[in-house]
Amino acid sequence: MKNILVINAGSSSLKYQLFDMDRRAVRARGQCERIGLDGRIKHTVEGRAPYTADRLLPDHAAAIRAVTEVLTGPETGVMAGMEEIVAVGHRVVHGGEFFSGSVRVTDEVIAALEACVPLAPLHNPPNLVGIRACFEVMPGVPQAAVFDTAFHQTMPPVAYLYAIPYEYYEKYKVRRYGFHGTSHRYVAQRAAEIIKKPFESLRIITCHLGNGSSITAVQNGRSVDTSMGFTPLEGVPMGTRSGTIDPAILGFLGEREERTAAELVTMLNQKSGMLGLSGVSSDFRDLSEAAERGNQRAALALDIFIYTVKKYIGSYAAAMGGVDALVFTAGIGENNAKMREDISSGLSFMGLTIDKAKNEAPGGEGIISADGAPGYILRVPTNEELVIALDTESLVG
Amino acid sequence: MKNILVINAGSSSLKYQLFDMDRRAVRARGQCERIGLDGRIKHTVEGRAPYTADRLLPDHAAAIRAVTEVLTGPETGVMAGMEEIVAVGHRVVHGGEFFSGSVRVTDEVIAALEACVPLAPLHNPPNLVGIRACFEVMPGVPQAAVFDTAFHQTMPPVAYLYAIPYEYYEKYKVRRYGFHGTSHRYVAQRAAEIIKKPFESLRIITCHLGNGSSITAVQNGRSVDTSMGFTPLEGVPMGTRSGTIDPAILGFLGEREERTAAELVTMLNQKSGMLGLSGVSSDFRDLSEAAERGNQRAALALDIFIYTVKKYIGSYAAAMGGVDALVFTAGIGENNAKMREDISSGLSFMGLTIDKAKNEAPGGEGIISADGAPGYILRVPTNEELVIALDTESLVG
Repeated sequence: MKNILVINAGSSSLKYQLFDMDRRAVRARGQCERIGLDGRIKHTVEGRAPYTADRLLPDHAAAIRAVTEVLTGPETGVMAGMEEIVAVGHRVVHGGEFFSGSVRVTDEVIAALEACVPLAPLHNPPNLVGIRACFEVMPGVPQAAVFDTAFHQTMPPVAYLYAIPYEYYEKYKVRRYGFHGTSHRYVAQRAAEIIKKPFESLRIITCHLGNGSSITAVQNGRSVDTSMGFTPLEGVPMGTRSGTIDPAILGFLGEREERTAAELVTMLNQKSGMLGLSGVSSDFRDLSEAAERGNQRAALALDIFIYTVKKYIGSYAAAMGGVDALVFTAGIGENNAKMREDISSGLSFMGLTIDKAKNEAPGGEGIISADGAPGYILRVPTNEELVIALDTESLVG
Repeated sequence: MKNILVINAGSSSLKYQLFDMDRRAVRARGQCERIGLDGRIKHTVEGRAPYTADRLLPDHAAAIRAVTEVLTGPETGVMAGMEEIVAVGHRVVHGGEFFSGSVRVTDEVIAALEACVPLAPLHNPPNLVGIRACFEVMPGVPQAAVFDTAFHQTMPPVAYLYAIPYEYYEKYKVRRYGFHGTSHRYVAQRAAEIIKKPFESLRIITCHLGNGSSITAVQNGRSVDTSMGFTPLEGVPMGTRSGTIDPAILGFLGEREERTAAELVTMLNQKSGMLGLSGVSSDFRDLSEAAERGNQRAALALDIFIYTVKKYIGSYAAAMGGVDALVFTAGIGENNAKMREDISSGLSFMGLTIDKAKNEAPGGEGIISADGAPGYILRVPTNEELVIALDTESLVG
């Protein structure tokens, strides 16, 4: 049995999934929480009761050790020993301009990840800590890095450069990077398979809609534009993020409220979006409930989200000269039929017409557009961890 | 003869046009420059040599006096006396949420304009000074205010609200206003007349492309969305303005370069856009020449402009469920056939196909789309001063 461990390390948490690559199935999954504070581990194996335990986790290496112990322990385990793990795949947020695909981790790769820290100061450091912890706890096991940004490295300069002084690109690499790349790549490829057309011949718009949301234009198998930019703040409004606004608002509020640009950006990341507009919640289910109870601002927040996603779809259709398939994925994209219907409404002029019955039918992957419509609309559950495992397998195989 | 004087007052300049409303023709035009410094007046009457004179202009009232003198003077004049002017129309940049149309200036209007000063601190004060100067020099002559923002006041909240904490809208009226409204309104109406369809039944996208550029979605005769926002910084990249960027870039640069948000916004307004990208010039003709000589960054700057305008067209088509007419106006939109062709390319999927020969033919107003295409593309020279004069006439008539 070929086991691959997938790790997603945050600042005080570490999520893991153990894949059986022969079956492409998850054998166990879980997360370590409160790393560096006190510590707790939650561990799930299909068919067994979930296991939760308080456990001292002073650092990420301790967390990785805890993971290896639950994976091999007498009651919680699914393996005899860690030697059954053939490789570890890490989710890494930012690969800068260094990585246009997944890579096996070497000293050079670690040096490049460190060089990307200024671009993702909150995310890359814990990713690096996770990688180092695995080298420490599982010496000799090959590791791979799979980047949120890599799929978007095919964007042309016309899509990735901002119209600001060029020196900021040269000096600091300020440009559009895009995120959720693993998800956009996976669901775009799956969409091509489902409609049985060559991925390399299609114009696909992928809508990854969750608490964080991004839209990507995928032309001939390559990301050519995406709504998130230099950071995940840009694009459509999200749970607590503003998405795109007039940048002059920062100058105005900076003077009125006596706040620095960095403080205002924190406000745009944490107190804006659905939460800021509605004053109710950042959660789309809460907003739907509030809107149904008559809360006007909750309804307006949802309408603004729908309207902005719709405009991005139109803009990427224009960028690619039309669209062959529109794909919905992630928490909202997979599970909220009303949202998919509202976003797709009025897009028949570009060949996209949703089928109300197909859209509302329960189920996972599938076509939800009207028979005979020129373009397809699909619902494709994303599976970033599986993609990380597959990339890792192909790199170490 | 019914004469209306149109005034566009800036901080140290004052432009004027005298219209004969019976013929809707300009009788004389010119501008006062270096007001408050020393002073100069340039004055043109069709069929006569241009007149230029140094003249002490300590303030805007002196400038208005100078205008009345050249308009009635023995050599430069076109009237016997100022009593032949029936009304004065003023271009005013910002009407906030107070004005959804042009108004006759009263004390209440002046108070509202003063309340809008925080929203347009560079533009509304000289507009107000111009109005007060006219009341001083031409007491009893009715005056009208025509706003850049007014046409866009029909936007729904879904288009004008930003996804930021709602209190900023309540407290400071931070929202999308949009600009160039007089131009968008005029060319959209003219387009409807030219294609002989009711303005109130059409979905029109107007591209006002000049040194400053904005795109507007006009549905059923009303502005429903526009690319400029809280300020004229948002939207497509312009001569020196960045247009939309990831707002997090301000936080990043604020820390790296130790600059305040307001300083960064000044950089985004004055050193970005075509100038910042190319390092060559903010002028589109300079950029075209540089690109032809092989300057890659000048070519890239133009490509980014074209690409971004194209994406806005797609987004507004999606917002309106399709588009019946695409209109190009202003310096670039009227005069740059290559730019119109490049922006329109690849939009046949939404019914828009340009006719290369019609597009390149010299001339003013007209249809430049292919015969039989479902949507129209038009070139419509803008005439903001005439609209100001017509609005003024209807208000004081």
